[in-house]
Amino acid sequence: MAAQQTAANGNAPSWQVKTADKRAAEYVKIPKEWRLEPKYLGDETSDRNVLNVPAECGILSQAELDITEKYNAVSLAKAVQSGSIKAADVATAFCKRAAIAQQLVCCLTETMFDDALTRGKYLDQYLAEHKKPVGPLHGVPVSIKDSFSYVGVATTLGFVSFLDNDFPTENAPLVDILLELGAILYCKTNLPQTLMTADSHNNVFGRVLNPHKLNLTAGGSSGGEGALVAMRGSILGIGTDIGGSIRIPAICCGTYGFKPSSHRVPFGGQTEPCAIIGPGFPPVAGPLANSFEDLEFLVRNVIDTKPWDRDAEALAISWRAPVAAAKPSVRIGYYKGDADYPVHPPVERALRESVDKLTKAGFEVVELEKYPSMKAGLDLAADYYSLDNTKLFLDFVHRSGEPIIPSLQKTMHLVNKKPRYELGEVFDINLKSAVYKARWNQVFVDNKLDIILCPGAANTAVLHDNYGAPPYTAVWNLLEYPGIIMPVGKADRSIDTNDLAKPDPDRDWQYNADDVHGAPTTIQLVARRYQDEELIAASAMIDACLKQ
Amino acid sequence: MAAQQTAANGNAPSWQVKTADKRAAEYVKIPKEWRLEPKYLGDETSDRNVLNVPAECGILSQAELDITEKYNAVSLAKAVQSGSIKAADVATAFCKRAAIAQQLVCCLTETMFDDALTRGKYLDQYLAEHKKPVGPLHGVPVSIKDSFSYVGVATTLGFVSFLDNDFPTENAPLVDILLELGAILYCKTNLPQTLMTADSHNNVFGRVLNPHKLNLTAGGSSGGEGALVAMRGSILGIGTDIGGSIRIPAICCGTYGFKPSSHRVPFGGQTEPCAIIGPGFPPVAGPLANSFEDLEFLVRNVIDTKPWDRDAEALAISWRAPVAAAKPSVRIGYYKGDADYPVHPPVERALRESVDKLTKAGFEVVELEKYPSMKAGLDLAADYYSLDNTKLFLDFVHRSGEPIIPSLQKTMHLVNKKPRYELGEVFDINLKSAVYKARWNQVFVDNKLDIILCPGAANTAVLHDNYGAPPYTAVWNLLEYPGIIMPVGKADRSIDTNDLAKPDPDRDWQYNADDVHGAPTTIQLVARRYQDEELIAASAMIDACLKQ
Repeated sequence: MAAQQTAANGNAPSWQVKTADKRAAEYVKIPKEWRLEPKYLGDETSDRNVLNVPAECGILSQAELDITEKYNAVSLAKAVQSGSIKAADVATAFCKRAAIAQQLVCCLTETMFDDALTRGKYLDQYLAEHKKPVGPLHGVPVSIKDSFSYVGVATTLGFVSFLDNDFPTENAPLVDILLELGAILYCKTNLPQTLMTADSHNNVFGRVLNPHKLNLTAGGSSGGEGALVAMRGSILGIGTDIGGSIRIPAICCGTYGFKPSSHRVPFGGQTEPCAIIGPGFPPVAGPLANSFEDLEFLVRNVIDTKPWDRDAEALAISWRAPVAAAKPSVRIGYYKGDADYPVHPPVERALRESVDKLTKAGFEVVELEKYPSMKAGLDLAADYYSLDNTKLFLDFVHRSGEPIIPSLQKTMHLVNKKPRYELGEVFDINLKSAVYKARWNQVFVDNKLDIILCPGAANTAVLHDNYGAPPYTAVWNLLEYPGIIMPVGKADRSIDTNDLAKPDPDRDWQYNADDVHGAPTTIQLVARRYQDEELIAASAMIDACLKQ
Repeated sequence: MAAQQTAANGNAPSWQVKTADKRAAEYVKIPKEWRLEPKYLGDETSDRNVLNVPAECGILSQAELDITEKYNAVSLAKAVQSGSIKAADVATAFCKRAAIAQQLVCCLTETMFDDALTRGKYLDQYLAEHKKPVGPLHGVPVSIKDSFSYVGVATTLGFVSFLDNDFPTENAPLVDILLELGAILYCKTNLPQTLMTADSHNNVFGRVLNPHKLNLTAGGSSGGEGALVAMRGSILGIGTDIGGSIRIPAICCGTYGFKPSSHRVPFGGQTEPCAIIGPGFPPVAGPLANSFEDLEFLVRNVIDTKPWDRDAEALAISWRAPVAAAKPSVRIGYYKGDADYPVHPPVERALRESVDKLTKAGFEVVELEKYPSMKAGLDLAADYYSLDNTKLFLDFVHRSGEPIIPSLQKTMHLVNKKPRYELGEVFDINLKSAVYKARWNQVFVDNKLDIILCPGAANTAVLHDNYGAPPYTAVWNLLEYPGIIMPVGKADRSIDTNDLAKPDPDRDWQYNADDVHGAPTTIQLVARRYQDEELIAASAMIDACLKQ
């Protein structure tokens, strides 16, 4: 690739020098006393699980371990707001744990640890003075994907060519809302070059590793969030999703992840990795967390601030009261996966065991006999991804001379499906999409479904650069349906054996039980567009059942 | 125009013969005893007001006059459902009055009078047997724009080339919903060739005249609805709107008209006059009526049936409870119009008098000092209207040899702004639109507005083929904001004198007080996207105040 050999400017430092400088500058922001001994560190070839390193390494006090491990966002907010935990201590605990996570799995881009410690003290003072919290997220640390603007902090997206960009002078609307709600912002998280693939790997910050097993992918594009939340270096993370970018990291790292319907959580104020705003469905923002309860906690509180006053694209629709109480039962349709993308044994088992448990608990669960093809949906999504004839996302890579990451090469057929589209094709693609949407809608109507339970991917977390196409998540982006990833277990080589696997025609590799042993297993729950509240209510009942 | 001289097929009848046949076929469906004496009939050059002809002509009994004049949809539904009026009598009364309206102002395309009479009897039987109504619209006649599919009835849109199309074999979702709600469907209403102009004139059915004054336009594209409702030949009409097509007829004919946010009333199952589905904002369906209360009555009841189960594009968002009670005051921003399109004296007076009345009644009313230009908004809307490079809407005209109507020639610069667009331009237009939207949103935020009060057009109803561009309505389509037209008075040559008029740079004609004397005056009320419920609640308070 010629572009790799030439820097954009003959006198400018080569991209390797620039990225080495950037990494060093970020590394020195981690206080010496928070740095791990080399024995804890692994690399992307190691099969180690590093989830317990924070507890073992001695850097966090017992109180700090308790703060980061014994709460969800809801209960932590209560504890801080009742005065039983100091926000300053929360800030310190999560900054330390995030720093440890960063050293282990490379999940961060920028850190705002000093801001966070100052903020924690401010929140404590405020509570002492006013006898009331700043807002419902008072004292809750929230990590944000690198793309969100935070005043004075770089937003490079891991593009070398963005290293020289000016820092934002305005916060993203969501950042302002989180601060107004009382949250503590303390770090930005890592993502893939261009954001259009499922391995969070870029030439500036490196590659996010899966804390369950370092040689597995953490998913993407919000992979830094997935890994950080799994490490409990974050209690609540904000990702974005146009093909699975919140849900794939949740799948790979075994967290909860919620992609709401379009425009419900304000998306504005982000640096975009590609041309905006093409025809088609928009990317959306949403939470990742270790607790189901925290998904609704974040989204409801954000929407309660009327984000449409700050972001003209945000939907002016209030969060509706949970309807679970009004509905004694939930009717669930499920499917086991398409022949085009046969699900791997641990995914098949996660679905089967979930369905069994739900059926036994009295949920109405029906298997869907006929439903629209995932491949057809992914093909349409790929058309929308590829409509920018200027291929600006590739220009952002090439202008610095940095190489394209291997993972993006594997999804290039989806994000650069054709070199050029004509405007007339958009009419055709829109029409095909409308037909596809109508068919899915009919599945809900004909089967009288409240929600659908399905695989989030054919696979669990897989070896780096092997994730490939995301049919099972991207289809719901095309439809703008809200979707939730819910962790249910772990891949187990003694149960999920190779002989159970079907040949996988979409891959240049095949299922290997040893490789994925120990990777989390998950299910996906989906409702129709704008039925976010109904999805949350139904999923809460499902989560309670499956966690029994 | 060469196309006018040649029929598409040498052996086919010329377009003139085909349309004459069609008109004759429709005319004979009007029973002889419902036909008006020639003395009542006028033509498009007459300045007669024909609103009283139904009362004077002797065709309707006193009971039928009462049914069509003394109720709104809400109270008529109550009367029928209480048994004090028979649905069969309602059906007869409205069929007769619609037939009279058709002879006076050419507002209908297709009639389903026999179906309606059968339906009325069925509803009466049902009520007697079941002691409960079919639904909340039991016994309410509803007229529908020609574009909606109704099984077994033509949907030509007034295109000669569509006269040979097969009849629909499925109802539009909205038609099924109306029937399920208990409505009586009895006629389809007239519209402009291609629907993309404000004079409801086509070569198949002719031109809709304004019942207030036959030589004035009835507006468009839902002009048949506007004229029929004003004639009280309909108590509730369904129009569609992508640039003002519900609101312009309401402006011209002095009815209420409500364009909801996109996709709230199901739009599916219509014959389209152009290529679907291009990038940009969608057309929407909504009601016209003589009573404010009926707007919410229709929309709420339709949404309560969960239209998203029948139309995949319909928003799965329930109609929220009215919030008026919760809010003691409404903060209204208003503007008097742009220099690019100076409002005519009667429009200026309607706004001024409304603002005075509201201010005196204690509403918070603020004049907007700065707001985005209507011209800029209309220019963006025109780009979206024009994106189909195949110009299919013109092909639908040309393929029969019929000529383009004069009114469409005047809006051609908006609906065929350029012969060809490139896909890359869509990204630019989208971006400009996002900026424009954000600026409008900021007007609401900075001024703490609940709603905006503004002109619906620079003009009242004007002489035929003079309406031209619709900046004051089309901008709200671009923004997908809900908008309501509310009648407030009449143009009066003794008050709205020519010397008060500013020169109008957008017209090839100037304001003439004599021409528009007697035309209705209206105001427009607008809220942000998806705040339909808030708009209805605030507008109800405004309507009550202005009608005092």
